[in-house]
Amino acid sequence: MLLTLDLLGICVFAISGGLVAVRNQLDILGVVVLAMATGLGGGVIRDVLIGAVPPPGVEDWRYLAVPALAGLATFAWHPALGRLERVVNVFDAAGLGMFCVAGALKAHEFGLGPVPSAALGMLTGVGGGVIRDLLAGRVPVVLRSGELYAIPALAGAAVAATGVELGLSPEVIVGPAVVL
Amino acid sequence: MLLTLDLLGICVFAISGGLVAVRNQLDILGVVVLAMATGLGGGVIRDVLIGAVPPPGVEDWRYLAVPALAGLATFAWHPALGRLERVVNVFDAAGLGMFCVAGALKAHEFGLGPVPSAALGMLTGVGGGVIRDLLAGRVPVVLRSGELYAIPALAGAAVAATGVELGLSPEVIVGPAVVL
Amino acid sequence: MLLTLDLLGICVFAISGGLVAVRNQLDILGVVVLAMATGLGGGVIRDVLIGAVPPPGVEDWRYLAVPALAGLATFAWHPALGRLERVVNVFDAAGLGMFCVAGALKAHEFGLGPVPSAALGMLTGVGGGVIRDLLAGRVPVVLRSGELYAIPALAGAAVAATGVELGLSPEVIVGPAVVL
Repeated sequence: MLLTLDLLGICVFAISGGLVAVRNQLDILGVVVLAMATGLGGGVIRDVLIGAVPPPGVEDWRYLAVPALAGLATFAWHPALGRLERVVNVFDAAGLGMFCVAGALKAHEFGLGPVPSAALGMLTGVGGGVIRDLLAGRVPVVLRSGELYAIPALAGAAVAATGVELGLSPEVIVGPAVVL
Repeated sequence: MLLTLDLLGICVFAISGGLVAVRNQLDILGVVVLAMATGLGGGVIRDVLIGAVPPPGVEDWRYLAVPALAGLATFAWHPALGRLERVVNVFDAAGLGMFCVAGALKAHEFGLGPVPSAALGMLTGVGGGVIRDLLAGRVPVVLRSGELYAIPALAGAAVAATGVELGLSPEVIVGPAVVL
Repeated sequence: MLLTLDLLGICVFAISGGLVAVRNQLDILGVVVLAMATGLGGGVIRDVLIGAVPPPGVEDWRYLAVPALAGLATFAWHPALGRLERVVNVFDAAGLGMFCVAGALKAHEFGLGPVPSAALGMLTGVGGGVIRDLLAGRVPVVLRSGELYAIPALAGAAVAATGVELGLSPEVIVGPAVVL
């Protein structure tokens, strides 16, 4: 189940990266590259920090194919996606929540305590967006409007980390954590 | 003793990151995030490169709490800290020296020779500032005025790496290296 | 043989980083730092992702000396090198090809399959330039004119990864892959 959530989050983030690339008038390859960097960046940073190398975001072809296709789709249909930007924002927030939860759970699996797990979960959630904004030459969104962005991420990650610590099963935890 | 120096260096760098964030008119969360990234960035890069994962900067709650509190304090009292900027610069240089020394010593512990240890020490010292400036959308200070910044870092790291190689104890080395 | 190609590629990329630094009117230390970051960045990222730590780009003094000397040479003779920019561009493309091939081969050695190997090879080739442009405050070239840049990189890496998979020896593969 986590794999599905993970790929869904990657897809949504990749679309947000692709949209930023389209607005910066990058060509098709720039759009795909930025989409992949945005979708995979947070998870790869987390995996490197916990020693889970090579990261699935590099080794597993599904993790490469999903953001590449999302980038191509964004390039092809970006006028339609642009009109749906509010929908995208909703997905983006959901993706952020999912990433934070997945990041915290994976950090916990690798033996980290609850506080570091929550921190790594948040890093997973915001990492992709930070890379996207750095590559596009913008000050990262998380710094400019952090309350709207990082607080839900940290909340979700904290709930997940606490829940695991208390011995709950992942399936029980994901629900409330993603809602946050 | 190295732990104390390390946390002190992290604190000083976090304050410099927080001050840059305040000047860029970031909100409180942006200030804390930039303070943490500046304080922890150099050490985390070093730890990833020598394979010391998960890095203490992620796993140890003290390494997370110190820069977070420094960021909060910077946000709360930044007018006072701003007046003390020359004091901050002095601390910044001291922190740079401490980081370079600690970085070189840690690299040596992990079996690297003197030249790579010195290079990693320097990277530890300047890494946090580079991350701070990238996130804030500035060309990194180390590139703009390198002599004032990287030369003492490299000198301190070189002294530390050479000293360890000669079999001196860390306590003996830290003195002259930090002074540099 | 791969070591020679690797160092040659590092040298060429370091020159390109040094030239960007000179144009941004950085001082001698800024030029050397940017040259080293450009020359070593791609390989270090690859090594961290596949778990080959500490990376040769940090541990091996030859990997440190080559880009440092290239940076110094660029600073000393940049008017001459500037006139030779078309020559540099040719070398840059060749270096990109070599890096992609070497990156793909190394990833394969560490047990990755052909698609991830090709992706890592491409990342190795473009990584140094992305770091150079981020540090210099520019949107990375690979995003701005991707077709000219990333397509040959991916093609070379794909040829190399496929060739290894088919059991060809590295010497046979490097020829056509670098030409691409």
